Amino acid sequence: MSSFPESVQKLIDRFAKFPGIGKKTAQRMAFQVMKSDNLQAAELAESIVNVKSKVKFCTLCGGITEIDPCHICTDPKRIQNVICVVEDAQDIFIFERTASYRGVYHVLGGILSPLDGIGPDKLNLNKLIDRVKDGTEVILATNPSVEGDATALYINKLFEGKNIKITRLARGIPIGSVLEYTDEATLARALEARTEL
Amino acid sequence: MSSFPESVQKLIDRFAKFPGIGKKTAQRMAFQVMKSDNLQAAELAESIVNVKSKVKFCTLCGGITEIDPCHICTDPKRIQNVICVVEDAQDIFIFERTASYRGVYHVLGGILSPLDGIGPDKLNLNKLIDRVKDGTEVILATNPSVEGDATALYINKLFEGKNIKITRLARGIPIGSVLEYTDEATLARALEARTEL
Repeated sequence: MSSFPESVQKLIDRFAKFPGIGKKTAQRMAFQVMKSDNLQAAELAESIVNVKSKVKFCTLCGGITEIDPCHICTDPKRIQNVICVVEDAQDIFIFERTASYRGVYHVLGGILSPLDGIGPDKLNLNKLIDRVKDGTEVILATNPSVEGDATALYINKLFEGKNIKITRLARGIPIGSVLEYTDEATLARALEARTEL
Repeated sequence: MSSFPESVQKLIDRFAKFPGIGKKTAQRMAFQVMKSDNLQAAELAESIVNVKSKVKFCTLCGGITEIDPCHICTDPKRIQNVICVVEDAQDIFIFERTASYRGVYHVLGGILSPLDGIGPDKLNLNKLIDRVKDGTEVILATNPSVEGDATALYINKLFEGKNIKITRLARGIPIGSVLEYTDEATLARALEARTEL
């Protein structure tokens, strides 16, 4: 039985390490690299190296940026005492895309997950405590999962008794969805948190 | 609204150009590159460049290889006068994985598709005509699509009247499938080409 040439197999293996990329997709990608012209392949390789060399984590919020501190942390138009706490640097872009949030961010770099050995010491919490001043609003925007909720509760406890407003993203029925296909937990939550018209 | 840092956006755009890679997957991949250590990113970049520089197309069969002619064309144990004609270089590996084919290959580099402007002149046909000697068997292994079938018929005509055996992959019910979910065209073909037990 014949296999791929060594250099092709190596590239396939490396593509297959990406999350969401299976063996077949990795193969198709490697073949695409082979078929592309030299310039395109060189540009892709260069982009990968560039991202590693140019992109750093903002020392204030932990977001990804080419300039430190990032342009969100240094933007005078952003409300600096409203801090949206997210799990991952990617999450910042999800909120930015809504174009409706004017505060700043704080990246935890993970969520509490005792089974995976991730305790509070592994999260970027000390810097959050430093950043949170009297009168700050902390929006807990962890994912609506068990670990996300546990992390939110933990952070809530950290600031207990202080003059700090802790809020959480609303839970309810997603816009554009159909009641019929909404899961029971979400529907129960939506009922519970019903708002007056 | 804020967007990704420039170098990240570039990498996302380049990943998104791959077939089967959507915007979201490309984003996840770019973030993965950022999170990986420098060595891993450098290795990936190197692999891409390596594939382009080391891998060539075999001058005999058109398959991909690091040594020209490829090890299949030069393998004395392979039957050199049974040529399996495939659309793409990738297809060779699909047949090799079955470990049951002992002949050689010929890559067309595409299929006839008048709507896309791909005529016989765009396919690697002249070399095939050169390779096919008296008594050769040509196995037409194009995909079971309209274009694949048209290409097979075209090649069949090329060798008409010569002492060349032209065969085609059997059509029928895939092994492990369920009759209930087999499409009508396949089932009709399977009935028509039924074999005696």
